[in-house]
Amino acid sequence: MNKQQLFENIKRKQSFLCVGLDTDIKKIPEHLLKEEDPIFAFNKAIIDATADLCIAFKPNLAFYESMGVKGWVSFEKTIRYIKENYPDQFIIADAKRGDIGNTSEMYARSFFDELNIDSVTVAPYMGEDSVKPFLIYPEKWVILLALTSNKGSQDFQLTVDSNGERLFEKVLKKSQEWANDEQMMYVVGATQGEMFTEIRKYAPNHFLLVPGVGAQGGSLEEVCKYGMNNMCGLIVNSSRAIIYADKTELFAEAARKAAKEVQEQMAIELKRLV
Amino acid sequence: MNKQQLFENIKRKQSFLCVGLDTDIKKIPEHLLKEEDPIFAFNKAIIDATADLCIAFKPNLAFYESMGVKGWVSFEKTIRYIKENYPDQFIIADAKRGDIGNTSEMYARSFFDELNIDSVTVAPYMGEDSVKPFLIYPEKWVILLALTSNKGSQDFQLTVDSNGERLFEKVLKKSQEWANDEQMMYVVGATQGEMFTEIRKYAPNHFLLVPGVGAQGGSLEEVCKYGMNNMCGLIVNSSRAIIYADKTELFAEAARKAAKEVQEQMAIELKRLV
Repeated sequence: MNKQQLFENIKRKQSFLCVGLDTDIKKIPEHLLKEEDPIFAFNKAIIDATADLCIAFKPNLAFYESMGVKGWVSFEKTIRYIKENYPDQFIIADAKRGDIGNTSEMYARSFFDELNIDSVTVAPYMGEDSVKPFLIYPEKWVILLALTSNKGSQDFQLTVDSNGERLFEKVLKKSQEWANDEQMMYVVGATQGEMFTEIRKYAPNHFLLVPGVGAQGGSLEEVCKYGMNNMCGLIVNSSRAIIYADKTELFAEAARKAAKEVQEQMAIELKRLV
Repeated sequence: MNKQQLFENIKRKQSFLCVGLDTDIKKIPEHLLKEEDPIFAFNKAIIDATADLCIAFKPNLAFYESMGVKGWVSFEKTIRYIKENYPDQFIIADAKRGDIGNTSEMYARSFFDELNIDSVTVAPYMGEDSVKPFLIYPEKWVILLALTSNKGSQDFQLTVDSNGERLFEKVLKKSQEWANDEQMMYVVGATQGEMFTEIRKYAPNHFLLVPGVGAQGGSLEEVCKYGMNNMCGLIVNSSRAIIYADKTELFAEAARKAAKEVQEQMAIELKRLV
């Protein structure tokens, strides 16, 4: 999917919501445990209930890997289900990968070639050759960690170098030598709302993937105020607040209701663009 | 496995070699492709041929994930095979993970609980709460990326901060607030031989996982000269130079020969300890 198509989807659906499929067997409604593949059954219900309200789905690989082979089966079934039934969805494999060149090639092959996923989150610590193998696939995206939503983001990401530049700023600048805003996005946590002004100095036109709204406490209004650009430029993720809104047999309706509330706020925020 | 046990294995086997199981279906001998699980068949042969010459095996997850469900099956079979047949081997899941707390918990559960693997490589970019969930498992290890062996390591890892400290130094210092040398190791690339003196200033007693000897061009002698401590303190990995030493039906013998050569050099280097 290219940038313009993503923007068209946002305008049409009046939403820039990404639903995070962080599906944990210990947290899904009990009645699903009798299904042959409870994780997929849960995801399918969540996807069907929210697809018209969001523009992206983001399964976090950790949740699937923790189930071993079974989890990987559920992951692949989930991807295929979205691709077949909701081809306009932008799929993000939240994998936070990053390895030496020949290994990153293997990850790129896995996500882009085998599974036809639209984008992968990548960690920048290992530098250029860990990121570049993901950039040879047209209309596929690298979403590079810049400033994350967790407390530990302060340990290294805010370190100021001898030129007065913080590490996340260096990541933003350096990585633009590798790809432009048609192939790269950045992860910027919503819990750092005031920082979006800083981010936009270095990446005015990029899409940003924004976790941390909802369970982690970020404010959608603040993110939009400081972070929105003229193509929206934001994909705001919510995981737990939507998918675990309710743990009874009515979980999918509750997820829809939670997603609908966010989408309606987003429709209001999108008026900034007109 | 604890630090003392690891050191005992090194002394007994006169080796601190880790064989990297970066098994690529496109690179294994053709005759194996008719096996039901060619990846596992290859790994089993390599493991049997080298286990008495090495103290660790390190499957890189990327190579298994790129095969999807099948790859994950091969990975789990490989881990189980090592555990059952060579219980003295230290197993490293080279995964380079790192995510927010609740997600890192899932990864820790996957590798340590479900699969009983000894250690996982972790990327430091997201800071403390991305690492800590791995540290609650006794006698399991985090191997944190410090200074990697690839060219891109220069992009961010060598950035000097306003106190004159390079990022990898900050990672070494900061992370010692989270765990000591009984639970944490560091990845330090062999291609940066002269840097081991620097590393040992900050981490004199830690074990270091050293990739980059062999295909990537690092020198074992230099690594030992600058990096060895009184418990050896080094686990030197070689992947391609051993497992792809030959591509005929004699691949396992060739792998053994290549591993034997490294082990013999290691036995010489270990004389430094006496």
